Amino acid sequence: MKEQQYHSIALVSDGLRFLDQTVLPANACTVETDDYREVLDAIRNLRVRGAPLIGIAAAYGVVLAAREFCRGSSAECRTRLLEACDELAATRPTAVNLFWALERMRAVIGSIDNHTELPAALEAEARTIHNDDAARCESIGLHGTNIIPAGAGIITHCNTGALATGGDGTAFSVLLRAHRDGKRIHVYADETRPLLQGARLTMWELQRHGIPSTLISDGTAAMLMRQGRVRVAITGADRIAANGDSANKIGTYGLAVAARHHRIPFYIAAPFSTVDLSLSSGEEIPIEERAAEELTQLGGRRIAPEGVDTYTPAFDVTPAELITGIITERGIIAPPYGETLRHNAT
Amino acid sequence: MKEQQYHSIALVSDGLRFLDQTVLPANACTVETDDYREVLDAIRNLRVRGAPLIGIAAAYGVVLAAREFCRGSSAECRTRLLEACDELAATRPTAVNLFWALERMRAVIGSIDNHTELPAALEAEARTIHNDDAARCESIGLHGTNIIPAGAGIITHCNTGALATGGDGTAFSVLLRAHRDGKRIHVYADETRPLLQGARLTMWELQRHGIPSTLISDGTAAMLMRQGRVRVAITGADRIAANGDSANKIGTYGLAVAARHHRIPFYIAAPFSTVDLSLSSGEEIPIEERAAEELTQLGGRRIAPEGVDTYTPAFDVTPAELITGIITERGIIAPPYGETLRHNAT
Repeated sequence: MKEQQYHSIALVSDGLRFLDQTVLPANACTVETDDYREVLDAIRNLRVRGAPLIGIAAAYGVVLAAREFCRGSSAECRTRLLEACDELAATRPTAVNLFWALERMRAVIGSIDNHTELPAALEAEARTIHNDDAARCESIGLHGTNIIPAGAGIITHCNTGALATGGDGTAFSVLLRAHRDGKRIHVYADETRPLLQGARLTMWELQRHGIPSTLISDGTAAMLMRQGRVRVAITGADRIAANGDSANKIGTYGLAVAARHHRIPFYIAAPFSTVDLSLSSGEEIPIEERAAEELTQLGGRRIAPEGVDTYTPAFDVTPAELITGIITERGIIAPPYGETLRHNAT
Repeated sequence: MKEQQYHSIALVSDGLRFLDQTVLPANACTVETDDYREVLDAIRNLRVRGAPLIGIAAAYGVVLAAREFCRGSSAECRTRLLEACDELAATRPTAVNLFWALERMRAVIGSIDNHTELPAALEAEARTIHNDDAARCESIGLHGTNIIPAGAGIITHCNTGALATGGDGTAFSVLLRAHRDGKRIHVYADETRPLLQGARLTMWELQRHGIPSTLISDGTAAMLMRQGRVRVAITGADRIAANGDSANKIGTYGLAVAARHHRIPFYIAAPFSTVDLSLSSGEEIPIEERAAEELTQLGGRRIAPEGVDTYTPAFDVTPAELITGIITERGIIAPPYGETLRHNAT
């Protein structure tokens, strides 16, 4: 099967172009905007999502703000740009790549004296962040394919592909590399409730690359493992603490627990931009809670009674002791993560 | 809060009246029919569901068939009734209560010589099956409340209440009894993908009884356990093999694995009509696979790309070693189930 190309985000002459991920797979709808406020909205409402990608989107958002505030004579542009950075940082709390990318953009703002040079300098930095992420995805794939046995069934959760990153993905890049290496893998994708990123996005990406795959409900994962159909579990991460504890999409922790019960290796794949050495453990990672409607409604249709109480964390934390290895652009990091992450971080 | 009454099924003078569970909670729609073929359809399409309830519905289906075939002079009615029993038995494969109830109806058909007496005799037997199930539910609640600590958070999966049985439920009866006993429990209900029986039905029943409760996605259960918010896990069962292995709604096994990892007791609540001593282990329990559309569509809306492969078992099997106890109408059965189930079965 011929692979079909698609791009999650691109800076174009008139503004920023991105795929609206909330309407996939029914529609592949491209949005183009020159207003950083629409980028804020897109990140907040998951039209653009995935830890590395929201970092890239935020960086491009700063570029749009610079084009708006710094052309011509406004000397206030630096203040307004830093405010835009703050607004972008406030969109979502868990993925650290967002703050990491904005920190880099703030450093550029602080280092350029002539404000009219800021738009071009910020554009260069954002493009570097994007291109570097693509290169990191490729490296993650090249390192990660080594842990995939030929003919393996592999389970994954949420979406970690081109729709979540600036390149081929994190965990998805490993799958893609193993597939292209002719390893005859079969991917089982958790649908990933409540927002169905596995069903809507990962299955769409797997299909576009012609990777043999099967969609399951999240509750089917443990049964598949018991049947011996899964040899590796692999997911992305939204933030990794210094001790290796990893926040990722809600449901990841239960998958890791099931993998441990069945003695199946469980890997995290993520670039170092996801590692936050300032947090000693996963308990310090802020966990976003989403609106109740994400659980009680689907496509405007009510699927739970009116007025029920809900608990809707968007992420959970998988403790380091359940993680076999962390696949990064610098190789596969093994426990004890407290030492190995810090050693490889610089 | 005042409790609100509802009935899942009732034989009335003109036929059978049942709540169509596929349109809950948006609509509480009662169907009335005098045609056993509509009962076939209702069981097959989950308008009536829950292991004990489909046994009761099938028994009432035989009554409707008898009213159709055995009034007046037809001497062929016995043949046609046994054919109707076969059709009812072919609706769903996993819940053994269906076959158990039909076996009892077949015994009545075989024991009555005068065919004009069959409708009344079959009606009496079906009502007995229904009333006995209600009594078993009550006993399950009375025994089960003993394992619920005061103030406990309790997690459950799928629906096991009045909508699934002829009385107050199996696992749900335990929750209801503990609530009425003033134990200040808090119930966490897995939404239970793909058909959302937890979100649509269990939350609806919990609300009607005023039991404090929170709806979660299935993937949130392990995180809740890690947070220490759950002290007991309890579900129903669709078939229990002689060694205690228990088939229940897909996702139950993963919940049991997570409970074990967190050292939380995991109980099954079910009447002995769910026990199948003819099967030595869970590997022999036939597992129904449902249509792909149950996973790829919701309310007619497509939530996965066209043409994806799916794996959609309706049930999984939790091995006996993960089950702390089986709460039955005859008390709480403890391991080793190979001995204790057989000992208590008669």
